[in-house]
Amino acid sequence: MRAVDIIIKQRDKEALSKAEIDYLIGNYTLGNIPDYQMSAWAMAVLLNGMTDQEITDLTLAMAHSGDMLDLSQAVKIAVDKHSTGGVGDKTTLTVAPLVAACGLPVGKMSGRGLGFSGGTIDKLESIPGFQVDLSTQQFIQQLKNHGIVLTGQSADLAPADGKLYALRDVTGTVQSIPLIASSVMSKKIAAGAQAIVLDVKVGQGAFMRTLEEATQLANVMVSIGKLSGRQVIAVLSPMDQPLGSAVGNALELKEAVEMLHGVGPEDYRYHCLHLSAYMLILGKLAKDIDEGVAMAERAIQDGSGFAKLRELVTIQGGDVSYVDDLEKLPKAPLVESVYAEGEGWAAMVDAKEVGETSVTLGAGREQKGDRIDLAVGIMVKVKVGDRVSPGQELFEIHANDPRKLQLAKERLKCAVKIVNRPVEKPPYFHGVIGM
Amino acid sequence: MRAVDIIIKQRDKEALSKAEIDYLIGNYTLGNIPDYQMSAWAMAVLLNGMTDQEITDLTLAMAHSGDMLDLSQAVKIAVDKHSTGGVGDKTTLTVAPLVAACGLPVGKMSGRGLGFSGGTIDKLESIPGFQVDLSTQQFIQQLKNHGIVLTGQSADLAPADGKLYALRDVTGTVQSIPLIASSVMSKKIAAGAQAIVLDVKVGQGAFMRTLEEATQLANVMVSIGKLSGRQVIAVLSPMDQPLGSAVGNALELKEAVEMLHGVGPEDYRYHCLHLSAYMLILGKLAKDIDEGVAMAERAIQDGSGFAKLRELVTIQGGDVSYVDDLEKLPKAPLVESVYAEGEGWAAMVDAKEVGETSVTLGAGREQKGDRIDLAVGIMVKVKVGDRVSPGQELFEIHANDPRKLQLAKERLKCAVKIVNRPVEKPPYFHGVIGM
Repeated sequence: MRAVDIIIKQRDKEALSKAEIDYLIGNYTLGNIPDYQMSAWAMAVLLNGMTDQEITDLTLAMAHSGDMLDLSQAVKIAVDKHSTGGVGDKTTLTVAPLVAACGLPVGKMSGRGLGFSGGTIDKLESIPGFQVDLSTQQFIQQLKNHGIVLTGQSADLAPADGKLYALRDVTGTVQSIPLIASSVMSKKIAAGAQAIVLDVKVGQGAFMRTLEEATQLANVMVSIGKLSGRQVIAVLSPMDQPLGSAVGNALELKEAVEMLHGVGPEDYRYHCLHLSAYMLILGKLAKDIDEGVAMAERAIQDGSGFAKLRELVTIQGGDVSYVDDLEKLPKAPLVESVYAEGEGWAAMVDAKEVGETSVTLGAGREQKGDRIDLAVGIMVKVKVGDRVSPGQELFEIHANDPRKLQLAKERLKCAVKIVNRPVEKPPYFHGVIGM
Repeated sequence: MRAVDIIIKQRDKEALSKAEIDYLIGNYTLGNIPDYQMSAWAMAVLLNGMTDQEITDLTLAMAHSGDMLDLSQAVKIAVDKHSTGGVGDKTTLTVAPLVAACGLPVGKMSGRGLGFSGGTIDKLESIPGFQVDLSTQQFIQQLKNHGIVLTGQSADLAPADGKLYALRDVTGTVQSIPLIASSVMSKKIAAGAQAIVLDVKVGQGAFMRTLEEATQLANVMVSIGKLSGRQVIAVLSPMDQPLGSAVGNALELKEAVEMLHGVGPEDYRYHCLHLSAYMLILGKLAKDIDEGVAMAERAIQDGSGFAKLRELVTIQGGDVSYVDDLEKLPKAPLVESVYAEGEGWAAMVDAKEVGETSVTLGAGREQKGDRIDLAVGIMVKVKVGDRVSPGQELFEIHANDPRKLQLAKERLKCAVKIVNRPVEKPPYFHGVIGM
C-alpha cells in the first residue's frame, strides 16, 4: 500500500477501504507519512466528501491512534457531551454537576479554547488551585468515587487527531464536515464514551453558518454513532446571538454557578435543562425529555447540583470558597457599559462581533498558547426580541486596559441592530437528531 | 499575505491575483512556504481548475523563479519544441538537425526520461563522449555559431517547477491540466523560447488518454502563449501505438539518424516533416505547411540535415564515427523476435504495453536516478491496419538478460490484437491548434 495511491483514490472520488484508512492514519501518527501527503489528502476529502462508512472508519482509526479509555470499571454507561463551540457557551459547567447530581456519572475531557473566549478548563482555572491535568488513573478513580470529573484533554488520546488538526489549520482544510465530524467523534470515542449528546451550534457566531451545514454535520455524527455502536443525540442550537449573558472566563463561570442556584438568563436555563435531560435519557435514568428536564430542575431546587460542583472543586484541589462567594472570582479593573441610542426592538445581537470583541479584550486566544485574562469579558444585557429604549444598558464591558475598553465600546455599538417593529424571539433549538 | 488564505481562495474557486500567485511561487522557491501547504494548494487546483489568466500567471511566476535565458544575442527568433511524451518518440533527434539545416537555429534543453524509455539526452548518450551538461554561456555561444544545441535541462531554470513537480509526484497531483501546462510552458519560457511547437500526445501510451483531455491541454497551452506574448502551435498526435518502429535509447537514435537519410517508418517520417514545418513557420522561414514540409524534405535529400547532426555531435564532443556507422552503437547481446500466430489485420499495437515492457528490459527508469541500459529495447514491426499472417514478425526484442527477454516475449504476445476484418490506419495527427 502506498499513501500516494490512497490520495489518488480520494481525489478520484473512489471510497477508501477500512484497511486504506487505517494505513493512512496509522502511518501518519507514526511519522511514516509526511504532512505534505496528508494535507493533499485532506484537501481531496474537503472538496470531494466521504461516505458515512469512510468517515466512521476514519473516526475509529483516529480514536485507536493512541490510548483508548475503558470506563466500564467506573460507570455503568459512559455518557459524554460535546459542543461545537459558540459565544458564551458555558453549558458544561452547569450541566455536568446537574447530571451527576441526578446519579449519572460524568467524566469529561475538554480542550482549551481557541477563538471566542476560553474553553471549559480555562474557565475552571478562575478557581485557584483547580487541577486540570489529571492522569488517566486519577480520572477513572475520581469518576468511580465521585461521579464527576472535568479535566484537560490527554495528549495520549487520539494523537492522530491532534496532529491532523494542526495541519488542517494551516492548509485551509478545517471547514470539512467529514474531517470535523471525525475529529469530534474520535476524541469522544477514545475517551471511552458509549453515548454522546452533541450540541451543534449554527449561526454567525458558530463554526457552521447555515442550518443546512449544521444539519449535515449533525447527521454525519449521528451516523458515525450508529456505525460504530455508540448512541448519539445531536441538538441543533442557534448561535446568532450569544448564549446567556456572560462572555469571558470568570464571568461565564459565575453565570454557570448562578444557574445551579436557579438564577440566570432564560435561554441558558432552557439549554442546560434540555442538554441535561438528553444525557439522562442516554444514561437510561430518564425515560423521556419531560422526565429528564424535571430531574435536572429538581437538582437545581434541592441544591444537589451545586453540592456536586462543590464536591468537584474540592476533589480537584480548587479553593471552594470561590464558588461559595462568587465575588472572590477574578475581576477586571475597568467596567463600563454601552447604552442604546435608538428606540425599538433588538433584531440582532451579533454573537461573532461580541465573541471577537471579547478576544480583543483578552478573554480568548488568537493563537495557540496565547495567555488569556480570566477576568475580562462582556455581559450581554439584551436579547433578540427585547424592547429597547434610549439609554438602556446593552453591554457591560470588563476590561484591563483603557485602550482596549474604548475599542470594545466602539465595536459593540454596532453589534446590536434595533428596528422599529416587534421582532420574534429565536427558538431555543432548531431541532434534535437521533432521538 | 498568508499562504493559508491563498489556499482557501483556491479551495473556494475564487481566482487568484497575479500578486497572490507570485507570492506563493516566490516563497515556495525560497523555502518560506512548506511542502504541506503547496500540496494542499495543488490538490485544490487539480479538483477546482484555474482560469487561463491564473495558469499564465503561474507559468510566468515559475519561469521567473530562477534564471531567464535571453537568446536575442544568439538568434533572431527563438523557436523551441516540446513533446508531452510517448512511446518511441525520438522526434527531436531528427527534427532539430533538419530545422537547423534549413537555417532556423535550434537550441533545446531536454529532461532525462522517466517512464517509457529514456529522454532525448539519454538517447544522445549512446554516442561516446557526447556532452549534455553545457553551461549557459556554452549554450548561447554554440547556438550563435552553429545554430544547433541539444543539452540537459539546467537546474537554474524554473527551479519552482522542479520542486513542485517532485511534490506533485508523491501527492497525487500530477494529472492536472493547469499544473501540467504551466510546468511545460514555464521551462520553455525560462529557456528563452519566443515561439513553441507543442506535440501533445493522446492515447493509451500517453499522459493524456482521451482526445478531449489532450485538446483541453493544448488549448490551455496555446492560451498561455497568447497571454504571455509567445506564439504557440500545438499538434495533437495519436499515441495508441508507438511512433515509428524503435523503442529504446540506441535503437531510437539509430532510427532518428536513418530518417535523416530518408529511410524509416512512414508515420515517423510524416511526424518529423510536419513538426519541422511548424517550427519553420514560427521561425518565419516558411509561409505555410507545404513550404515547410518541402524545406525539411530537401534537408533530407541534400544531406544537409545529416551534416547538421554530425556538426552537433562533433561540437558537443561526441565520437562522430558512431553516427557515420550506426552499427557501432551499443548493441544488446540477446535479440529474439515475437511472431504472429493468427491471421488477419492488426487492430491494436499497444503502446503502453510496449513502453512498459521496454522499461522492464532496462530501457527506461522506474524511479528517478535509475540507470538505464542504452542498448536494450524493442523494434515494433507491425502497425495498426497492417495485414498479418501466421509466422510474421511482430516485435524484435533486444535484451541483456534471458529472464527479462522471456518476460518481454510473454507480454508482447498480448500487445497486438489481430481481427478478421480490415482495419483503418489511424490518422497521423488528430488536429492542430494555434495555426
